[in-house]
Amino acid sequence: MAEMAEFHLDEAMAVLARTPATLDAQLRGLPDSWVRCNEGRDTWSAFDIVGHLVHGERTDWMPRARILLEHGESRPFDPFERFAQMKESQGKTLEQLLDEFGLLRAENLSALRALNLQPKDLTRRGRHPALGAVTLSELLAAWTVHDLTHVHQLSRVMAHQYRDATGPWSTYLGVLQCAGHSSQ
Amino acid sequence: MAEMAEFHLDEAMAVLARTPATLDAQLRGLPDSWVRCNEGRDTWSAFDIVGHLVHGERTDWMPRARILLEHGESRPFDPFERFAQMKESQGKTLEQLLDEFGLLRAENLSALRALNLQPKDLTRRGRHPALGAVTLSELLAAWTVHDLTHVHQLSRVMAHQYRDATGPWSTYLGVLQCAGHSSQ
Repeated sequence: MAEMAEFHLDEAMAVLARTPATLDAQLRGLPDSWVRCNEGRDTWSAFDIVGHLVHGERTDWMPRARILLEHGESRPFDPFERFAQMKESQGKTLEQLLDEFGLLRAENLSALRALNLQPKDLTRRGRHPALGAVTLSELLAAWTVHDLTHVHQLSRVMAHQYRDATGPWSTYLGVLQCAGHSSQ
Repeated sequence: MAEMAEFHLDEAMAVLARTPATLDAQLRGLPDSWVRCNEGRDTWSAFDIVGHLVHGERTDWMPRARILLEHGESRPFDPFERFAQMKESQGKTLEQLLDEFGLLRAENLSALRALNLQPKDLTRRGRHPALGAVTLSELLAAWTVHDLTHVHQLSRVMAHQYRDATGPWSTYLGVLQCAGHSSQ
């Protein structure tokens, strides 16, 4: 089972459909000491991460899929604003963001289903403003792994708070050794 | 908000209480292609990770807390068997393991609450077989971060399956760069 998998739309959607409930189960009702903490200056908290996912639902994945299907490689995707949530989340509670993420994701998956994509559609190409030519299946796989990236990041941000509190155990706890990606 | 937090029992328990529902939301009903895949030879799948957490509920965290409270530093904790789940999980479904984890965690948190620990109890010491003297608060913080380690690992194991499928996006997706801890 160690070989990497090919992309299958239904399998990707099974992951995408579960992310809002996963974050909800992990975060809703947690004290602010977990939700608003980050890994230091200019890094993201759980609150920031959920805001980023909300913004992605609005402007990134499905909008790009539509541009790809309508314009192919002739029109590059709009660039994604990675810090937009800092403004958009202001004044909201984490619970509002979780609700918003759940609703937007459900709408986006419903729209994706309605496209009734066939295997040949998944090989259609669009143009990423920085990465160049990409296929629809690469876009949808990236959406899936993007969810996993932020679930992964969230655990690391939370674990960081107890780095000192775990005393000598810190050397055993893998999440405390993670430096595998940027802090945003 | 970037400073590391001190250990607070109620805050740690808020995280510990949410882990079974988090894993349930992420994993229950997913196709085996996600649940049984790993990162290569001798690494763990989602199924193995949940089995490991079940085994930890039975033999690791609360049993060690009891040894610490009863024997102090005079009796080291029993060593933890990190591969026990390979045998214990045999023949079970993921859904059974998720149910078991949820039940055992609820029982353990109920037992922890019943100890009615006071701040001075959290500084009491026990002896880890390899790490030496540890305090009760370090043990409980390690239990919390151990949960986060495996939630973190799980996202990485799943993301790995789509490393190739994401095409040029793979360089942008942090979870695919994680090499911060062992694969088990």
